[in-house]
Amino acid sequence: MKGLKERILNDVAQDLAAIEKALVENLNPYLPFVSHVAKYIMFSGGKRIRPLLMVLSARLCGYQGDYDKTLSVVFEYLHVATLLHDDVVDGAEVRRGNPVAHSIWGAPGTVLAGDFLLARSIAIAAQTDQIAILEILAHTTAQMSQGEIDQLLRRQDLSTDEEQYMEVIKRKTACLIQAACQTGALLARAPEDQVDALVHYGYHLGVAFQLVDDLLDYTADAQILGKATGTDLTEGKLTLPVIYALNRSTVEDRNRMETIIQQGTFTTREFDTILQLVTKYGGIEYTRKRAQEHIDQAKRYLRIFDVSETRRLLEDLADYVVVRQM
Amino acid sequence: MKGLKERILNDVAQDLAAIEKALVENLNPYLPFVSHVAKYIMFSGGKRIRPLLMVLSARLCGYQGDYDKTLSVVFEYLHVATLLHDDVVDGAEVRRGNPVAHSIWGAPGTVLAGDFLLARSIAIAAQTDQIAILEILAHTTAQMSQGEIDQLLRRQDLSTDEEQYMEVIKRKTACLIQAACQTGALLARAPEDQVDALVHYGYHLGVAFQLVDDLLDYTADAQILGKATGTDLTEGKLTLPVIYALNRSTVEDRNRMETIIQQGTFTTREFDTILQLVTKYGGIEYTRKRAQEHIDQAKRYLRIFDVSETRRLLEDLADYVVVRQM
Repeated sequence: MKGLKERILNDVAQDLAAIEKALVENLNPYLPFVSHVAKYIMFSGGKRIRPLLMVLSARLCGYQGDYDKTLSVVFEYLHVATLLHDDVVDGAEVRRGNPVAHSIWGAPGTVLAGDFLLARSIAIAAQTDQIAILEILAHTTAQMSQGEIDQLLRRQDLSTDEEQYMEVIKRKTACLIQAACQTGALLARAPEDQVDALVHYGYHLGVAFQLVDDLLDYTADAQILGKATGTDLTEGKLTLPVIYALNRSTVEDRNRMETIIQQGTFTTREFDTILQLVTKYGGIEYTRKRAQEHIDQAKRYLRIFDVSETRRLLEDLADYVVVRQM
Repeated sequence: MKGLKERILNDVAQDLAAIEKALVENLNPYLPFVSHVAKYIMFSGGKRIRPLLMVLSARLCGYQGDYDKTLSVVFEYLHVATLLHDDVVDGAEVRRGNPVAHSIWGAPGTVLAGDFLLARSIAIAAQTDQIAILEILAHTTAQMSQGEIDQLLRRQDLSTDEEQYMEVIKRKTACLIQAACQTGALLARAPEDQVDALVHYGYHLGVAFQLVDDLLDYTADAQILGKATGTDLTEGKLTLPVIYALNRSTVEDRNRMETIIQQGTFTTREFDTILQLVTKYGGIEYTRKRAQEHIDQAKRYLRIFDVSETRRLLEDLADYVVVRQM
């Protein structure tokens, strides 16, 4: 599957370069402090999946203008703004292998830099003169903060069920990825059926993306992932692998897991116990299966478009989401 | 001067009631948690000066529609979002006489509730279908976070001069008040000269408002103000009264003030020493004079409008800004 990643990276090399350029240019004239905080988190190994999806969605709908790269940065800025605020919220220490922003600049600077990125995003989107795009951004930002609040309120809540978990990931992750695809279509002034198709593609891709993220927190190589596995549980976040396992385990095994989870922190050995039980009760397999289903759905929605290099790229990106190792 | 306040309150009673209603209605369908945090800070004695200015500005420009009250809440929500994030930033303990939100709900919930209010504001503004209004909001939000960052970076910086201080208060306070007035004019589709006049009115009113706020932190009755005086200095904020005094004092008196300021915390007696020196070197008088000049300017810009009850109200509001005790 390494071939897939390399093929994608080769095909999007030019777009990625243009996106990187736009990410810097749209930030530079502003306060050095914000640029500094934002760049620290923004240029430390992000995958640019959101801007890329916007650019490719616009192209799939025949966009010929030159505002796509600029507008696409909005989806990275919003993502980074969320990361900055989340780092304060989560109390996480490491992100993408580096110390989190707030441990360097303090919570205040981190919160304000996030606010600034949000404001810049709206300003950039306003340049399109398309109110619909601004409405999407407003809706998305509201959903994302609601999702984060839900997650916060459910910390260590062992009664969280699959449906509640899905609500959270729809809001905190799928919504922004969906918005990126939808905005691409709107920028291209695509007909309604194409906009709808990309909304659904983005939604399913986004759900799968988060499912795999949550999975990797159990199964990944920490070296490749850039952070320790088991981080979600230490932060009190119950994700699908463990939710599924908790519901299917014997009372005895459930008690063993609950005791460890409620501790808040745990040893490598304790996490191994959790991982074994989660695997034993099918939590890993089930989550991977659900992710694959969403990817299949996502790709199905692309069928209304003619076969093209761009369509194939969007299909490849979907496939890559489930096989990625970080 | 108590008569002025009562006259204003009497004249705007109906508008204020409609604004209060809109503030609740536009929040209610959302997450109980956010409503809870937002309402705690929003319904604990705010003056609604920003929504009121928007409504009156629209009316002054002949607005006849029914979206003014709804749109006006944006300027209270943005203000409250800033307060929520500032409370985290400042480490303040008391706001309007009550414990600050983050000491009750924690920094994470407070940050996210602020994000949510920001998102709601953009959604409400998007309903106007006027991109120009969204551009103003984006610009304003960016300016406000820049202003807060500037202020943060200048904490306890004894070399801050009047010009740098003015830059901060333009961004963190005047910009939003200006935006409220400008948005009112735009909602009414007012001609350019009227929009400009209200931009300038709002700007000068906003500057005066913050100058008086900073003044009250030295001179107010803590009981009426709803928080202890001297809070700015304990938070490391150097405002005009002390900046002016520091620049005009003898080396000896400057050293006395600097020693106390650099401590971070100080006794009532030490604050009295600062207050005496600030008064002695004219910091109080100078700040009040500057505030009055800005109010005079603000009122001058209203002259292009015909005399009307609304114009008189906007003049009264300007006058009230300098005489208020809280």
